[in-house]
Amino acid sequence: MRLDDVKAQRRAEAEEAAAILGAEIEFFDVGDYPLRVGEAELDRLVDVYRELNPAFVLTHALEDPYNFDHPVAAHLAQEARVIAQAAGHKPDHERRYSAPPVFLFEPHQPEQCNFKPQVILNIDSVWATKQRAFRVLAAQRHLWDYYERVALNRGVQGGRNSGTAMTYGEAYQRLFPMAAEVLS
Amino acid sequence: MRLDDVKAQRRAEAEEAAAILGAEIEFFDVGDYPLRVGEAELDRLVDVYRELNPAFVLTHALEDPYNFDHPVAAHLAQEARVIAQAAGHKPDHERRYSAPPVFLFEPHQPEQCNFKPQVILNIDSVWATKQRAFRVLAAQRHLWDYYERVALNRGVQGGRNSGTAMTYGEAYQRLFPMAAEVLS
Amino acid sequence: MRLDDVKAQRRAEAEEAAAILGAEIEFFDVGDYPLRVGEAELDRLVDVYRELNPAFVLTHALEDPYNFDHPVAAHLAQEARVIAQAAGHKPDHERRYSAPPVFLFEPHQPEQCNFKPQVILNIDSVWATKQRAFRVLAAQRHLWDYYERVALNRGVQGGRNSGTAMTYGEAYQRLFPMAAEVLS
Amino acid sequence: MRLDDVKAQRRAEAEEAAAILGAEIEFFDVGDYPLRVGEAELDRLVDVYRELNPAFVLTHALEDPYNFDHPVAAHLAQEARVIAQAAGHKPDHERRYSAPPVFLFEPHQPEQCNFKPQVILNIDSVWATKQRAFRVLAAQRHLWDYYERVALNRGVQGGRNSGTAMTYGEAYQRLFPMAAEVLS
Amino acid sequence: MRLDDVKAQRRAEAEEAAAILGAEIEFFDVGDYPLRVGEAELDRLVDVYRELNPAFVLTHALEDPYNFDHPVAAHLAQEARVIAQAAGHKPDHERRYSAPPVFLFEPHQPEQCNFKPQVILNIDSVWATKQRAFRVLAAQRHLWDYYERVALNRGVQGGRNSGTAMTYGEAYQRLFPMAAEVLS
Amino acid sequence: MRLDDVKAQRRAEAEEAAAILGAEIEFFDVGDYPLRVGEAELDRLVDVYRELNPAFVLTHALEDPYNFDHPVAAHLAQEARVIAQAAGHKPDHERRYSAPPVFLFEPHQPEQCNFKPQVILNIDSVWATKQRAFRVLAAQRHLWDYYERVALNRGVQGGRNSGTAMTYGEAYQRLFPMAAEVLS
Repeated sequence: MRLDDVKAQRRAEAEEAAAILGAEIEFFDVGDYPLRVGEAELDRLVDVYRELNPAFVLTHALEDPYNFDHPVAAHLAQEARVIAQAAGHKPDHERRYSAPPVFLFEPHQPEQCNFKPQVILNIDSVWATKQRAFRVLAAQRHLWDYYERVALNRGVQGGRNSGTAMTYGEAYQRLFPMAAEVLS
Repeated sequence: MRLDDVKAQRRAEAEEAAAILGAEIEFFDVGDYPLRVGEAELDRLVDVYRELNPAFVLTHALEDPYNFDHPVAAHLAQEARVIAQAAGHKPDHERRYSAPPVFLFEPHQPEQCNFKPQVILNIDSVWATKQRAFRVLAAQRHLWDYYERVALNRGVQGGRNSGTAMTYGEAYQRLFPMAAEVLS
Repeated sequence: MRLDDVKAQRRAEAEEAAAILGAEIEFFDVGDYPLRVGEAELDRLVDVYRELNPAFVLTHALEDPYNFDHPVAAHLAQEARVIAQAAGHKPDHERRYSAPPVFLFEPHQPEQCNFKPQVILNIDSVWATKQRAFRVLAAQRHLWDYYERVALNRGVQGGRNSGTAMTYGEAYQRLFPMAAEVLS
Repeated sequence: MRLDDVKAQRRAEAEEAAAILGAEIEFFDVGDYPLRVGEAELDRLVDVYRELNPAFVLTHALEDPYNFDHPVAAHLAQEARVIAQAAGHKPDHERRYSAPPVFLFEPHQPEQCNFKPQVILNIDSVWATKQRAFRVLAAQRHLWDYYERVALNRGVQGGRNSGTAMTYGEAYQRLFPMAAEVLS
Repeated sequence: MRLDDVKAQRRAEAEEAAAILGAEIEFFDVGDYPLRVGEAELDRLVDVYRELNPAFVLTHALEDPYNFDHPVAAHLAQEARVIAQAAGHKPDHERRYSAPPVFLFEPHQPEQCNFKPQVILNIDSVWATKQRAFRVLAAQRHLWDYYERVALNRGVQGGRNSGTAMTYGEAYQRLFPMAAEVLS
Repeated sequence: MRLDDVKAQRRAEAEEAAAILGAEIEFFDVGDYPLRVGEAELDRLVDVYRELNPAFVLTHALEDPYNFDHPVAAHLAQEARVIAQAAGHKPDHERRYSAPPVFLFEPHQPEQCNFKPQVILNIDSVWATKQRAFRVLAAQRHLWDYYERVALNRGVQGGRNSGTAMTYGEAYQRLFPMAAEVLS
């Protein structure tokens, strides 16, 4: 199979998964073996932050010795997030942007990536949808069961840490301190 | 001044500060140079957890090379929290206890204690009260200004991390992952 | 249920599990909420090391904020291992003891315990036996499925790290450098 | 305001601050949102090291998730420092260069940058001058009080760690072991 | 001496050392003050991996504040190792490649590089050969004794950790968990 | 050999070594397999601190999985150092005590003990004396050469880090930030 066919297929799958999730999706088309990003991609992502003003960011773990594209993507996500807040960057741009919290999702082998779960999100009510989206990715079929087991075990941990049972959980690491009005 | 006088004075100050905060206070009277705790204190604290069923726990940082009583107190607080949840411990005890989240408050020299701020609590609305309570502790007068500066700087950081200004902040480290229904 | 009944039941289960595994088992009977060990237990375990001269040691992780008995047990296992090698300890004792390698087995929430998998052991050929032994522990029934999922996911990781598929794996952290005659 | 105006103003401020401090200043003019440095900047900085043969280097912390230009600048400072010592680099260059110690100054949110204070410098005698220089930077007016509080609290810590009181302190992390003729 | 002469001499030495070791050697000729690698070098190294299908990889430590070329080389070695396994990379390429284990060799100042010895290899039977190869590198004559002492001390440590004496040892850090059929 | 004979011999050696060094020595006689310290030893060491008011403290590394007595000794040294400064401890005691800096000396396998060299002390002028003292310890004869190699290699590192050659060095980790009047 040629590279163009592979890319077309991956794109089609991603669009189908996004539709299931009700998500909008945008492709930067910069390859992943290796992933390299330049000023153009950074500038474009800064604009996305300012346009969307997202409530939070999900990105990859900061280290991953199995997937060298993941830390590059995470770095891009972080650097663009900061530049978007700089008054001096494209100063004419009218905006109400405030740098959002950043959550790192769990990598495949978390301890090798120095990933620390700090939040366990209860995903019981959306599990069926997530599973449907996940199963669109035919090339990663061997990971379906793997990640279902991850979700079940994070769910057990979420229940143990909170005292409130959950069946399916997702673990996240926060990059920044959380500002709070009350402790809980 | 004799030890008994010192202890009586510290106790009186602590009670006065607690009254200002609207807090109940209980003394284990086990000394602090050095602080050593045994089975009796552990057992007593387990009972406190079961009786109060607290929504959260505040304790010291896990390491502190300046204050050897702090990690001992933090260890006691943690171990009692876990035993209180053990079905096998005093099984007749009727209870509805669930091990609560634990927050470590900021030590005097945070980097030397490997303290990591993960939550910055906005304390603007209670700052005046906190300050009143703090100033009861005459023996720590040299720390009043120090900790006001800490609160002001954590407040600035809280604002920078959230985009919502606060004047006074308190930094906490969480010991356990936080279970969440939504990301924020 | 009284404490004696609980202990008798746990002991019976442990013996049954040991029999399935073909293991010898010995109880120190020192409680676990809290676990406290003194000179007598240390001395006894030193003797066990010298008598058995084990090829390796399996013990708990060095940190565990959910189970305060685990690090205490791991510390005892380590300290006894070292003392057993000291020529000055019970010098009349004839022996051929050499301090063995130490492996930490995976705790329930590995990242919270700073556990790092350094070895993934292929347990495919013994999985059925392990499962049978595990299921004897009726009080931990809620963990059966949990640990089966852990074993399956560690198996996937073992395959990914070595290029040789395994179905069930166990993750271990080594406490000491491994001496080797060849790299592999 | 256009970028050129911003840059001209920042440059004027920096020159005014440098004059107050009695420092020479040189601009590489490579932007900071984002900061990217190439071979030309590296080569130029190597020459600066060889020409000045500085007694020590001050640079940014190695990590800073709030300021992506800081670690880039710190990396450049370090790499140039090493190349300047390489005999093979521009071998005709006559020189007496020896790679100097490196000190990292305190970032805005030190714990988030894994910054560890290892030296606390007493700046009492130069505080008034530092403050004057700092106040030139009108764009960072909100940080004046912040950093005065930092200096006061580091001063308290300096006194606590040494037993000799200081009012204003600056915290530094050392990148390399310090060679010493006596312990103190 | 001009750069070309230096390079010719280093190349001759490296070839002579390789001949002593019975190793094949290939030069990428990309400089080292500074070392920068691009897509061409990455692609070339991916091909090497696929062609050789090595049993293991030796590379530099992940951090080294004294040698900025070392982490760059280690990163290249790692990234190419992963891409070589990607089915989508040059899909026509027939191959039987499986990503090999990675060992980091000991840097000059191991603690400053966060290097952790996890394997100590007994090199007694090849020490004479290693020494002969090492001594070819005339420019590093001051390091001959240094590294002989390192080898002797790692040998002592290897003996202490295993109970089996060795005279000369080499310390390695593993990048990935080791899959094992038995514990030892 | 009986324990009493072993102890008498170790004591004689230690006294002889101390005489060579011109040091005063005091034995607490609390054993080392295992080393356990109680209130009496702590209280006694507090008095020593107050009486001597030392300029600095040398003690063991904070972790050592090969020598369980070392971290216990280091903890005692630290806790006594802090209590000696407490105004409330034996308040009648007239004194001019100020808690001194603490230096950890290098353990046998530094990376396994998370030891970080922060100071490299030039010991060229006292090496002959140190060696003479060291050689008194007949039971550690196998370590003489080992530690000479350590000293030579730390000396090389000291020279590399400072640009000033030294032949023999000793590496230390500092426990607390160093207060300084100038950077160097």
